[in-house]
Amino acid sequence: MTEIIKGNVIHTTRLGELTCFEGGWLVSVDGVIAYVGQTLPEEYVGLPVTDYGDMLVLQSFADMHLHGAQYPMLATGLDLPLMDWLTAYAFPTESRMADNDYARMVYRKLVRELLDNGTTRVAMFASLHDEATLILMEEMEAAGLTGYVGKVNMDRNNHVLLQETTEESKASTLRWLEGCRKFKNVKPILTPRFTPSCTDELMAWLGETARERDLYVHSHLSENDKEMELVAQLHPDCSQYWETYDKFGLWKDHTIMAHCVHSDARERKAMRDHNVLAVHCPDSNNNICSGVAPVRILLEEGNWVALGSDISGGAHLPMLEVMAIAVSTSKTRCMMTGDRPLNAAEAYYLATTAGHCYFGDQPGFAPGNPLHAVVVDDSSIGVPGDHLPLAERLERLFYRAKSEHIKAVYSAGRKVKGE
Amino acid sequence: MTEIIKGNVIHTTRLGELTCFEGGWLVSVDGVIAYVGQTLPEEYVGLPVTDYGDMLVLQSFADMHLHGAQYPMLATGLDLPLMDWLTAYAFPTESRMADNDYARMVYRKLVRELLDNGTTRVAMFASLHDEATLILMEEMEAAGLTGYVGKVNMDRNNHVLLQETTEESKASTLRWLEGCRKFKNVKPILTPRFTPSCTDELMAWLGETARERDLYVHSHLSENDKEMELVAQLHPDCSQYWETYDKFGLWKDHTIMAHCVHSDARERKAMRDHNVLAVHCPDSNNNICSGVAPVRILLEEGNWVALGSDISGGAHLPMLEVMAIAVSTSKTRCMMTGDRPLNAAEAYYLATTAGHCYFGDQPGFAPGNPLHAVVVDDSSIGVPGDHLPLAERLERLFYRAKSEHIKAVYSAGRKVKGE
Repeated sequence: MTEIIKGNVIHTTRLGELTCFEGGWLVSVDGVIAYVGQTLPEEYVGLPVTDYGDMLVLQSFADMHLHGAQYPMLATGLDLPLMDWLTAYAFPTESRMADNDYARMVYRKLVRELLDNGTTRVAMFASLHDEATLILMEEMEAAGLTGYVGKVNMDRNNHVLLQETTEESKASTLRWLEGCRKFKNVKPILTPRFTPSCTDELMAWLGETARERDLYVHSHLSENDKEMELVAQLHPDCSQYWETYDKFGLWKDHTIMAHCVHSDARERKAMRDHNVLAVHCPDSNNNICSGVAPVRILLEEGNWVALGSDISGGAHLPMLEVMAIAVSTSKTRCMMTGDRPLNAAEAYYLATTAGHCYFGDQPGFAPGNPLHAVVVDDSSIGVPGDHLPLAERLERLFYRAKSEHIKAVYSAGRKVKGE
Repeated sequence: MTEIIKGNVIHTTRLGELTCFEGGWLVSVDGVIAYVGQTLPEEYVGLPVTDYGDMLVLQSFADMHLHGAQYPMLATGLDLPLMDWLTAYAFPTESRMADNDYARMVYRKLVRELLDNGTTRVAMFASLHDEATLILMEEMEAAGLTGYVGKVNMDRNNHVLLQETTEESKASTLRWLEGCRKFKNVKPILTPRFTPSCTDELMAWLGETARERDLYVHSHLSENDKEMELVAQLHPDCSQYWETYDKFGLWKDHTIMAHCVHSDARERKAMRDHNVLAVHCPDSNNNICSGVAPVRILLEEGNWVALGSDISGGAHLPMLEVMAIAVSTSKTRCMMTGDRPLNAAEAYYLATTAGHCYFGDQPGFAPGNPLHAVVVDDSSIGVPGDHLPLAERLERLFYRAKSEHIKAVYSAGRKVKGE
């Protein structure tokens, strides 16, 4: 089936560069992009067109780090540093996912809210419960949200309400992986919670499982001072945090590491050397007083960086809002260190292309990519007749657009919002 | 007329303290609050009730510093420091208010958006145009937005598109003040743009006018390094910025000073000594890289502090969003200096009671205050059946509520949103 979309198309193929087609075209065939540009190619002329008029047609958003099981506490309890916050809020909230009915209710709402806000690809932590993790993946598959989900592994230093033994963690992981076979657009990823939560035995087993089953890995890195001290105590043989993953085979191509707030030059180089994705979670980092990540430095050194909402350390689920916060905290960083702030085009790249590439896409709306797009009607925002350039209309969305302005969302070629 | 409101009432009479009445009552008679509490007094039993069920009944918001004439550029052009930003964006945008039809269109939309988001009292800069300033005040009076508005005075260091001579500034101010006599709920306030924009002659005349006509004053203070250097150059006789207002009689009871990012102990004491209101504008300060204001220090020293959106240096008009940003930037400040961050109750106080007191109110929903209230339906936010405490529901609104969740707004006893 050929889908021909007309509108003001904005995509980004390089960091900081926007390509805009005012009254442009985006064509997909069987859910795969076939053309993007200013003029409709001859071969499609005369076919039915979905004309979005003066609306903006954007790449959809990829949220590359979030905790689905923390959705019930979103935007509450934002008054503690990381380690205390985990004990007081995050762990008890996640423990409720032992109840499958509760999990389904929560995850169904989360998936709907993600899609309504234009997020179509995710790299998400669930909880340690394998059944609830499969329920999340079922809800994603049914609604059309795509990406990677992990059953969390955590067999030490945990909460009375949220524990698994090493053996339970392994068995639960195997049950979960078995259950994942039925999914088409949702895939498993191994998610050791973070080094302090996993014994060496479990880490080694996960590394081996990743290798045997060709699975990617997703965890946390150098988020917070206290956490880093704890990691150093637990692994006196490792001079840096990343080595605690590396020594168990978890530091490898496409490993996702959230935060990297305090990663120094050596750790950043280790990321580049292994094609590790650093996920910048600016809202969460500020909320739990972890720091302001060196995004400009990571980018200038050539690291691969994408954005994450990191709910519910982050209090904002819509990636448009996360982009605003990324720009904003980059200005804070500028005031602290002089690092050049992110501009709107750069934030858009981090929330779209940088994340979509994780899934094998070429940059921007490249032919061959599955269609992931968002259509935004900004006609009610701002002052009538103001005729802003498309780049400024895009910037304005970060601060002003709500889900009600998002009129259509396409995920892997499927229309998941809109008529 | 007696208005009896039932709902989950939350008000704040002291910084950091919430008073919550679950299923409580708020009664006004002829637009003035007569009762707030848990039980409906005998005398009102049997009268018609507006029952908001499980919704939250909050104090409305007071936005104590914003630039109405910059509304057309809201959330765009956020990439320059203060002095460059004024020249590139703010001044050209304000210059368009020379067109009365344009001004009416812009201001009508601004006023509607403020009310829809629960802001019922403001201290607002217009532009240097006296006619457009009166148009803004007409739109406010008609729609029910109350507060203080200033025709801007600026007779030096200005933009080619936005200039007035000293004589023009005086004459324009007098015409505007004359035009203000017709308003009931909107009042004039003198707004010298800031020290660099006004000659000594104009400042002296404004000081005299303030004294003769018993007018309040609203301007900017110690926002940004470059600005402060310029002020020091222009007034070598003043050792501090505030003295450039004081020497002309503009530093007095109820003078509003936006920002105070770099105000030191002596300047802060001068504010306390003269009952000057410091308006904290966290979003704007971060956007234009001015700094992170010492809010905790101001509060601990006993300064009077309220919140401002400061559009369009600020990119967020809804005060709920400004509260979230105030909490967030206070965490940034905590990371920089160790100052204890603001919590949700404190942010609510700054956005409500601290500003409402400017207008002569007693703290909170005190009997005798005009009724300024907001009703929020948060039933679609979060997970069904989560039964959060009212304080957490309030906190969650900062990050999650949009204008669509605000079901009713009362301003000076008048219902300005809702059926």
